[in-house]
Amino acid sequence: QTPTPPTRLGLCAACHGASGHASMPGVPHLAGQRLDYLRDALKQYRDGRRNIPVMRAAIGPVSDAELDALARWYSVQSPQPQGQP
Amino acid sequence: QTPTPPTRLGLCAACHGASGHASMPGVPHLAGQRLDYLRDALKQYRDGRRNIPVMRAAIGPVSDAELDALARWYSVQSPQPQGQP
Repeated sequence: QTPTPPTRLGLCAACHGASGHASMPGVPHLAGQRLDYLRDALKQYRDGRRNIPVMRAAIGPVSDAELDALARWYSVQSPQPQGQP
Repeated sequence: QTPTPPTRLGLCAACHGASGHASMPGVPHLAGQRLDYLRDALKQYRDGRRNIPVMRAAIGPVSDAELDALARWYSVQSPQPQGQP
């Protein structure tokens, strides 16, 4: 049921990991997060309501359809990191 | 290693669940989220950088120490909902 990795996944994966398990300070895990929340947060980062320059730079040029594919991808990833019970 | 439930947990649990598994539309899961991210997000909600009235109302009166206890609590909850493998 996991969809095909979105075209723009690399943009997110650099910090959040391809499966949504972040290892950088201050960067949230995204794996298994609610889809509606991810969609809303992405819109807020893109329009500046959440004013985080690196996020705005990353997703500024990303289309609505691509953002949706990214949100869907992360929402269906397992919230448990691999290798942990 | 799970800490004692924070005094103000009920404030968060109403929407995010006591163990951080949200069931309300648009409300993020918090279980197992990175502690540094949770701390930062809470500060942004409290000072209005993330302008979400319900969050500002909820945590406006909460002290730094209490916010920290809440962030710690959710960061150590299991990201996998109970009853799922």
